[in-house]
Amino acid sequence: MTDLGPIAPPERLLMGPGPINADPRVLQAMAAPLVGQFDPFMTQTMAEASELYRSVFRTANEATLLIDGTARAGVEAVLVSVLAPGDRVVVPCFGRFGHLLVEIAQRCGAEVIKVDVPWGEVVPLGRIEAVVAEVEPKLVGIVPGDTSTTMCQPLDGLGAICHRHGALLYADVTASLGGNAFEMDAWGLDAASAGLQKCLGGPSGSAPLTLSPAAVEAVRARSSVEAGLVDGDATRPPAERIRSNYFDLGMILDYWGPRRLNHHTEATSMLYAARECARLLVVEGVEGAVDRHRRNGAALAAGLEGLDLRLYGDQAHRMHNVLAVHIPDGVDGDAVRAELLETHGIEIGTSFGPLHGRVWRVGTMGVNARPEPVLRTLEALGRVLGRTGGVEAATAQYDQEAHP
Amino acid sequence: MTDLGPIAPPERLLMGPGPINADPRVLQAMAAPLVGQFDPFMTQTMAEASELYRSVFRTANEATLLIDGTARAGVEAVLVSVLAPGDRVVVPCFGRFGHLLVEIAQRCGAEVIKVDVPWGEVVPLGRIEAVVAEVEPKLVGIVPGDTSTTMCQPLDGLGAICHRHGALLYADVTASLGGNAFEMDAWGLDAASAGLQKCLGGPSGSAPLTLSPAAVEAVRARSSVEAGLVDGDATRPPAERIRSNYFDLGMILDYWGPRRLNHHTEATSMLYAARECARLLVVEGVEGAVDRHRRNGAALAAGLEGLDLRLYGDQAHRMHNVLAVHIPDGVDGDAVRAELLETHGIEIGTSFGPLHGRVWRVGTMGVNARPEPVLRTLEALGRVLGRTGGVEAATAQYDQEAHP
Repeated sequence: MTDLGPIAPPERLLMGPGPINADPRVLQAMAAPLVGQFDPFMTQTMAEASELYRSVFRTANEATLLIDGTARAGVEAVLVSVLAPGDRVVVPCFGRFGHLLVEIAQRCGAEVIKVDVPWGEVVPLGRIEAVVAEVEPKLVGIVPGDTSTTMCQPLDGLGAICHRHGALLYADVTASLGGNAFEMDAWGLDAASAGLQKCLGGPSGSAPLTLSPAAVEAVRARSSVEAGLVDGDATRPPAERIRSNYFDLGMILDYWGPRRLNHHTEATSMLYAARECARLLVVEGVEGAVDRHRRNGAALAAGLEGLDLRLYGDQAHRMHNVLAVHIPDGVDGDAVRAELLETHGIEIGTSFGPLHGRVWRVGTMGVNARPEPVLRTLEALGRVLGRTGGVEAATAQYDQEAHP
Repeated sequence: MTDLGPIAPPERLLMGPGPINADPRVLQAMAAPLVGQFDPFMTQTMAEASELYRSVFRTANEATLLIDGTARAGVEAVLVSVLAPGDRVVVPCFGRFGHLLVEIAQRCGAEVIKVDVPWGEVVPLGRIEAVVAEVEPKLVGIVPGDTSTTMCQPLDGLGAICHRHGALLYADVTASLGGNAFEMDAWGLDAASAGLQKCLGGPSGSAPLTLSPAAVEAVRARSSVEAGLVDGDATRPPAERIRSNYFDLGMILDYWGPRRLNHHTEATSMLYAARECARLLVVEGVEGAVDRHRRNGAALAAGLEGLDLRLYGDQAHRMHNVLAVHIPDGVDGDAVRAELLETHGIEIGTSFGPLHGRVWRVGTMGVNARPEPVLRTLEALGRVLGRTGGVEAATAQYDQEAHP
């Protein structure tokens, strides 16, 4: 193995459901030198990251921080810290990542009640409320933008429904944050978590997370202090404890908060990356970034229809940043993807479970939510399929936006 | 927040117990462009990382991979995947990180039997064997290099003891790997996990991990497939399942193995960093790197004694890469650390629990396991304390190594 050289990746344009190309400024941030874990610069950087993610999540929550892991680490941190064994959870479920919430909650020992709709649709709020009223769960958990189907569940109103019935509302907004409207406080959410590798334009490996005061209270009711950190034993008998140390949000809050009580060793380079992702978004303006994703998503959709491809799912509820199209009959979907990658350096995706091999998923997000990557992708896909009309249709859509 | 600039850390020489300065080549690796999650380059890079860490851990284990999280994520992944509620675990405990193993195992629902010695000592193998013979645990878990006390527990012979009594042996070698001798296969270990931020010279945020075939079998006996990934429901009823999805090593093995079954989205930049850390170590030669840490640790120890500071703990079992010294009577330990940081840009540490404020911990590891950082630290510490003789004693030690 001593003949291996430094890492030298090929150049790719990542136009799938994510991860996507990281913004070069985010990559550069990761090359910055490290400082110690309790260096004044470190604590200042953590505080800046908290403040920036408050803007991104649109919240005043003091408890806004990063989990050192990928997006699903954020999901698990929320669920394992809030849910005790036996607690009831309602999960509206319309794609793979809804199923993931169900599974993680079950592993926490929770009793999970699913509200299912067919893939390609979203869940009517009335149906969710009926179930919530009936089972009175501790938490409602949802993935509003589920990339497996590319549907985007409206959340406005769901917070009020949950609170009317004494439930907390949690959303995994990994795939949608920064590219689709999201209002933590105005919509009444109690917990949200995300990742960097979608509209935030960073690498996977850090999970921004925010908790309302009510969610913090639910976590604190289950918290303990780590053995070996203070004299004497932990403050709570094992049976009641949060089942994970790494994801114990009580401890992580003590690390990020004014007590600065040591927990894990913060992943400094990923902290730098996460801070830069949020900084770029805040400098652009979150609403502006969402609109940019909307415009480029619309052009991509128009272009794919221009290639005579049929869009998948309920178009009234499509995510801005990723969409799915049916693979035409007689076309080998994986062969097309392979040729796109090998000949044109462009990656698009397929999907999971019932949609595997039936749809392609094409994304335009982060630094790739710009006309050039969209048009380049449509041009290449047209060549591989032997079809034309994609670039023209997308261009017409951009023109219409510019001169409505 | 829109007036915040890009990240611009101050220059620090990190001579505490870790994290330490990352090798500039590792930081550079993180700035490399991303590729897709199933790009041939990505799977090749994952395979290279596995192979490189086999060399670092000195093992033939096929199951060698990275956990996307900090070092303690690796610890939790092993414990939650191997231990079912009610399983017995023996933990020889001689510092904070032994207590951490105890705590994580308890949160997994395991029954933990500690073998305690006073901080500053290591545990005689005979005492461990007596307990293992008595309680017949499923696993013995140990932190051979515990930075809280800087003691290094000998492991040679412990594998045979464990196997004689039907137990698996796991070691958290975060703080010691690459700087102290470690022989995964020759010493009969079944599981080991680490982090990048100590002797491997990288940032925190990725946890290399390896499992013997017997450990893989223990994990597979508890594995299931994620809901939403395949048609139909998960393959195992919830009650028996591994309690974590994120840390389910069965799933993570399926992601790293030939099936490439999607789990989390691999933290690509941290993968690049982890690969570069291991590559640099393998190019240097693992034994050479261990000897470099030994030589620089010995010079640091001599230099601190030259400053009339008293080394802490059992010197026959001191780690190569970090050591503790008693804070002299009448000296304000935190004030000295603050002046070192502010005036000289050098960070050293204190410790936890019973040792907090009683010792300083000084490390020489990774890129800082070289004479220049050692001498610079001794010079600065001497100035802050108003003492001399540190640089001279360290230099004499280096000379003695060079011309014995």
